[in-house]
Amino acid sequence: MHALPDIVGYLAAIIGTICWIPQTIKAWTTKETKDLSIWANILVLLTITLWFIYGILIGSIPLILGNLISICAVGAIVIAIFRFRSQ
Amino acid sequence: MHALPDIVGYLAAIIGTICWIPQTIKAWTTKETKDLSIWANILVLLTITLWFIYGILIGSIPLILGNLISICAVGAIVIAIFRFRSQ
Repeated sequence: MHALPDIVGYLAAIIGTICWIPQTIKAWTTKETKDLSIWANILVLLTITLWFIYGILIGSIPLILGNLISICAVGAIVIAIFRFRSQ
Repeated sequence: MHALPDIVGYLAAIIGTICWIPQTIKAWTTKETKDLSIWANILVLLTITLWFIYGILIGSIPLILGNLISICAVGAIVIAIFRFRSQ
């Protein structure tokens, strides 16, 4: 049993899954995204998509589900950046 | 050997380590951060700090080094948000 590492790891996984949601909500409610880096958000989206694919390849349900939530949240940020950047 | 999962996993880890740097550069060069969510960036910083601690607890050098780079990049974004938010 590795109780402490497991607790820290699960906590990181849970917060890592939901951490984008405040930015998604802010981008879509204010409709202002000029201070957001397009490249950073595309790279984050690429990263979590790769973790999602990795989860499918190794058959890890937590990786698949967690990253699917993150893909939706960060995908919505990237869409918001492109949609509102001319305003 | 799991060649494809390993390649996808390493690629995710490498891109995940550097993905914040464009946002760090943008925040500190433009000095404008009002569109950035304070909560999202604090939660991201908390997440990678927990992964860093997890890396120390299980003795994983890649987790320690990768997340140390991310902590610097996201830490600098959080500092920029607080420093430039009144401007």
